[in-house]
Amino acid sequence: MGGKEELVMQLDKRRDISIDGLKARVLELAKRRGFLWPSYEIYGGVAGLWDYGPVGAMLKHRVESAWRDIFVVGESALPIETPTIGVEEVFLASGHLSNFVDLIVECVNCQTALRADHVVTEYLKSRGIAADLCDPDIADACVPSSEKTQELIDSYDIMCPDCGGPLGKVHDFNLMFTTHIGPGTQRKGYLRPETAQGIFADFPRLLRFYRDRLPFGVAQIGKSYRNEISPRQGVIRLREFTQAEVEVFVDPREKNHHPRFDEVANVEINILSKDFAGTASVKAACERNIIAHEYLAYHIARCREFFTRVGVRESRLRFRQHLPDEMAHYAVDCWDAEGLTQHGWIELAGIADRTDYDLKQHERQSGLQMAVLVPYDEPKEVERIIVRPNMGYLGPKYKGKAKQVAAFLSTIRDPEGPIVFDGRIVDPEGYAIETIRQTVSGDFVTPHVIEPSFGIDRSIYTLLEHAYDEDTIDGERRIVLRLSPDIAPVEVAVFPLVKVLNEKALEVFRLLRRAGLLVEYDDSGTIGRRYRRQDEIGTPFAVTIDHETTENSTVTIRDRDTTKQVRSSIESLVDVLRGMLVRGFDRISS
Amino acid sequence: MGGKEELVMQLDKRRDISIDGLKARVLELAKRRGFLWPSYEIYGGVAGLWDYGPVGAMLKHRVESAWRDIFVVGESALPIETPTIGVEEVFLASGHLSNFVDLIVECVNCQTALRADHVVTEYLKSRGIAADLCDPDIADACVPSSEKTQELIDSYDIMCPDCGGPLGKVHDFNLMFTTHIGPGTQRKGYLRPETAQGIFADFPRLLRFYRDRLPFGVAQIGKSYRNEISPRQGVIRLREFTQAEVEVFVDPREKNHHPRFDEVANVEINILSKDFAGTASVKAACERNIIAHEYLAYHIARCREFFTRVGVRESRLRFRQHLPDEMAHYAVDCWDAEGLTQHGWIELAGIADRTDYDLKQHERQSGLQMAVLVPYDEPKEVERIIVRPNMGYLGPKYKGKAKQVAAFLSTIRDPEGPIVFDGRIVDPEGYAIETIRQTVSGDFVTPHVIEPSFGIDRSIYTLLEHAYDEDTIDGERRIVLRLSPDIAPVEVAVFPLVKVLNEKALEVFRLLRRAGLLVEYDDSGTIGRRYRRQDEIGTPFAVTIDHETTENSTVTIRDRDTTKQVRSSIESLVDVLRGMLVRGFDRISS
Repeated sequence: MGGKEELVMQLDKRRDISIDGLKARVLELAKRRGFLWPSYEIYGGVAGLWDYGPVGAMLKHRVESAWRDIFVVGESALPIETPTIGVEEVFLASGHLSNFVDLIVECVNCQTALRADHVVTEYLKSRGIAADLCDPDIADACVPSSEKTQELIDSYDIMCPDCGGPLGKVHDFNLMFTTHIGPGTQRKGYLRPETAQGIFADFPRLLRFYRDRLPFGVAQIGKSYRNEISPRQGVIRLREFTQAEVEVFVDPREKNHHPRFDEVANVEINILSKDFAGTASVKAACERNIIAHEYLAYHIARCREFFTRVGVRESRLRFRQHLPDEMAHYAVDCWDAEGLTQHGWIELAGIADRTDYDLKQHERQSGLQMAVLVPYDEPKEVERIIVRPNMGYLGPKYKGKAKQVAAFLSTIRDPEGPIVFDGRIVDPEGYAIETIRQTVSGDFVTPHVIEPSFGIDRSIYTLLEHAYDEDTIDGERRIVLRLSPDIAPVEVAVFPLVKVLNEKALEVFRLLRRAGLLVEYDDSGTIGRRYRRQDEIGTPFAVTIDHETTENSTVTIRDRDTTKQVRSSIESLVDVLRGMLVRGFDRISS
Repeated sequence: MGGKEELVMQLDKRRDISIDGLKARVLELAKRRGFLWPSYEIYGGVAGLWDYGPVGAMLKHRVESAWRDIFVVGESALPIETPTIGVEEVFLASGHLSNFVDLIVECVNCQTALRADHVVTEYLKSRGIAADLCDPDIADACVPSSEKTQELIDSYDIMCPDCGGPLGKVHDFNLMFTTHIGPGTQRKGYLRPETAQGIFADFPRLLRFYRDRLPFGVAQIGKSYRNEISPRQGVIRLREFTQAEVEVFVDPREKNHHPRFDEVANVEINILSKDFAGTASVKAACERNIIAHEYLAYHIARCREFFTRVGVRESRLRFRQHLPDEMAHYAVDCWDAEGLTQHGWIELAGIADRTDYDLKQHERQSGLQMAVLVPYDEPKEVERIIVRPNMGYLGPKYKGKAKQVAAFLSTIRDPEGPIVFDGRIVDPEGYAIETIRQTVSGDFVTPHVIEPSFGIDRSIYTLLEHAYDEDTIDGERRIVLRLSPDIAPVEVAVFPLVKVLNEKALEVFRLLRRAGLLVEYDDSGTIGRRYRRQDEIGTPFAVTIDHETTENSTVTIRDRDTTKQVRSSIESLVDVLRGMLVRGFDRISS
């Protein structure tokens, strides 16, 4: 963002925001309580790889379930599952092979590999020097230029920030992990940088599955990879992470009318766009052209619904429009959902209009048509200019590829200028251009793609930070995670007050488990310690079996946030707890 | 299995077993209806990579949920999530770097890479020649020897089965996908061949999480990889697949007493062991020493519970004991759950006693102790022989590794003979051996690991094959998938009989969806076609809204298996359907 306009937003005044060293405290808690562990810690760990411990994995499972509820069940976007290993053709088409790169420079002395543009930016910033690294040849986006970066390193004589040694030459580093499929090196494989490409590659199958009707949505949750040069931001910048993406395929002529827009029209969101900073309803944002169209606005609203449900605080969530200079060259409008954390505002999700870019690219790469026949009310007779392949010429010329070229040529309608296949002009001898009269039943339309894409790991880190709190109970300092009951790894803890009550407590535990609640039983240590542990993993309610239980079959229910307690009969316990999980402790207990 | 004893098992007499070309029919249906698609089909596909389409992904989600119900909730084995990319140290410790290999040979002429032992075995078999490829240096297991394989190729002059060309030299091919973490080639990465190693590497954290008490179980569901040389068995042999594994850490002295064994004691299983072929209860199998101990038997019973719940037919499921010559060298007893399919009996799960092998290996590799202090009732005074590291010597000698060596030495109790670290003898100057008297509060025990490990993809293929059926309804041939309602991708389909009833049908659809049922709405094509489509994806019940609905608010419910229909009021529809999903159509409708 640099010196650009920054939204000054009303932040809520909870104390946790001002806790000293909050970042370190959250991480300490996350490690100690089994949310997040550095991967391969016994071997010294690897930057950018983290494990979810038992409590973290349960939290993640619940966050993913909430996402499925909203985007799979709610939006009828059926999920598919495609491999994490992708093939070269896919990333030639998507552009990742040429564009998914960072600038790298190695220190000649200590061999450390560094993000070249970061080294230069930090060096200049620390000296108060303004400089522009953007590549002047790329009109719409600020992509750091390797030439400019090299020039600045040379002219300021910038040295290795780690050891002070001289730096080598700046070059591109592709961020895809590479491998080989099968023996030998003939078939290259890449760990996918996004789940989306697996969906695009399945488009012909998906279209048939949805019986050639637009719009339809397809979802995928799974691992994606980014071989960062030198990740230094803990769990924020991961080399392996979980994405949850939806690709909504829509007729481009219908983008400004979402059939269910009314359901979300009045949802208020915090906006930071090129022209506007403040809060507005998505409807108003559409009408005032702050958001390009209803399809984007609709998914921005659903995105807000997801984040608030899992516990990202409303006041620390904003939607920031990409500036023209940071948007991918194919996108017409793109928004980031950002969460405010101790790492600053970080991207949690992107909501983009990817247009027909990806489908067109795969069409070119595969030679298969990626379009939908959208029928007219009545068939029409029209004149068409078509391209008829000349196999007699194409066969000898393209050999094994001839069929693919022919298939590609057959998809072209009303050609203009030379025809290009795979980067080369096809000889005019390879085809004839003919005008024909046909009865057509509809238009072939390449759908546009609206994509809400979520980083599950960053969302989890953010909600942990937003849930973290410290307070004082009976004169003792306490750490408490104020997690939403919708995603808490444990919903109810069950404790016997003393050992003789273990059997009774286990009965209650089994009763709650049979009712489908996420329950944990704990009989070790003092009751105070057991409460603290549950507070630290965010368990909303704790049920204690005490001496009164044996007399009148009642137990106490303790509220995590207030530590208030009420008694409930065992008979009605399941209903009472279910009510509290949905509507809160106070509304049920009073 | 070759000429070895084969269990002759009573198969159920369902017709589907004898359907001609069942394998091809199942695959055709799976592709057409969106269960399974070849990955990257638009680019020609890749052997060993398959997608789950929308219906398949929902089926897979439900199968994984059933697994979680039994092994995570039921067994309190909390899941963790570790990266798919592993580091070299992990696979040095686990042995995968040296042992996870197949023999490969390339054709000099057509360059095809082939499984060398398969080429030889198939050649000899087709000529009725008996031969033994097993490596004589490996006592307990039949690992094909590259020397013997090479000898046989040479002496029989075996040629490439694809083109008849001459074969090159036989050599080892490691089946892990390799990559590099970060820039350069310094840090090698491997796509994990099993999820288990991530759990073992987290053992110190997990032990603390479970407060140093045995037994405890840890689960992981996720992708694993095997870079097959030339996979040719469709969806059975995948290069990327989903594993669901539990590692149960248990005190080795307690393996013959599982605390919940009574719950499963009478479960009957089909057994094929070295001494026994037939059906027996797991209790009897333990008592007769067919299964080594209760922990294995308990998990075999749970494994059977899972498979029968998701629809693997009881009569086509057996538990086969590994013969001594096929068991991993460290395992003391190992069983495969096998399903009978058109590919023969295929492994769906393994239930192994991995002993303390993995933890000991990681202990050696990391220099960290992987043991649990199991307390005595009373502390004891004992004499101990310990190894005290001499840092004055180790420091200069081992430099950066000195601390690791010292830590390793400190873990040794009662040493015998020379001490070996990382494959080399540590100089005796590096330590002192001392006898000390200590008060000890318990024994340090390295837990043994009992591992039920499931291949989710193969389980899904098997249950699809077992569910596939064809019958004749009103004189028309019909394909029907007799999926269990527990895992069917759609539980209830809702149809309007004619277009004017669409609104009413959508109301019913929304009612069922709000009740949490997996519902699909369909108003396109004839009612007969809509029924067929749902039959083909295994939807147990279809609700049709007809003209009577507008008169008396009743609908018809049609049963997939019998195609019988009953009427139900809309008011009681949710309860009726829920009852049918649990107890079947007949018991509710009559």
